[in-house]
Amino acid sequence: MPRVSIDVMLRDEILDPQGQAVERALPSLGFTGVAGVRIGKHIELTLAGDGTDVRATVEAMAATLLANPVIERFDWRVED
Amino acid sequence: MPRVSIDVMLRDEILDPQGQAVERALPSLGFTGVAGVRIGKHIELTLAGDGTDVRATVEAMAATLLANPVIERFDWRVED
Repeated sequence: MPRVSIDVMLRDEILDPQGQAVERALPSLGFTGVAGVRIGKHIELTLAGDGTDVRATVEAMAATLLANPVIERFDWRVED
Repeated sequence: MPRVSIDVMLRDEILDPQGQAVERALPSLGFTGVAGVRIGKHIELTLAGDGTDVRATVEAMAATLLANPVIERFDWRVED
């Protein structure tokens, strides 16, 4: 029953207004020197089974439902 | 210039309608056996400096701006 984490982020060439808003808010809260803020989705889920075909399942799910490959990229990993 | 990733998730006892919607959509797309879907935010940012006080800075930022500690928890890690 592997627990999988998937991070879905806008591609680097796509504007990220949410990240820009956070980046502009941080100095007024006293946090200076923060750059390149990007905000995306973090998805956690549990797969049934013994962990075979995790790669195929997760990448198919991410590409068809969780991310829009035109504007987003995803990374995933198995959590302990 | 450490690159930091912060995952902000609703606490386990807080209802996650977005995760439930994805969990219900997956079987109709042919993905069975997926449970416990939770969806939160994934934030990437670059800190200026040589990496001292990363823990204090990141945890203060997360607790004051990036997460609402009443309903959300966060994990963070330094990338590469």
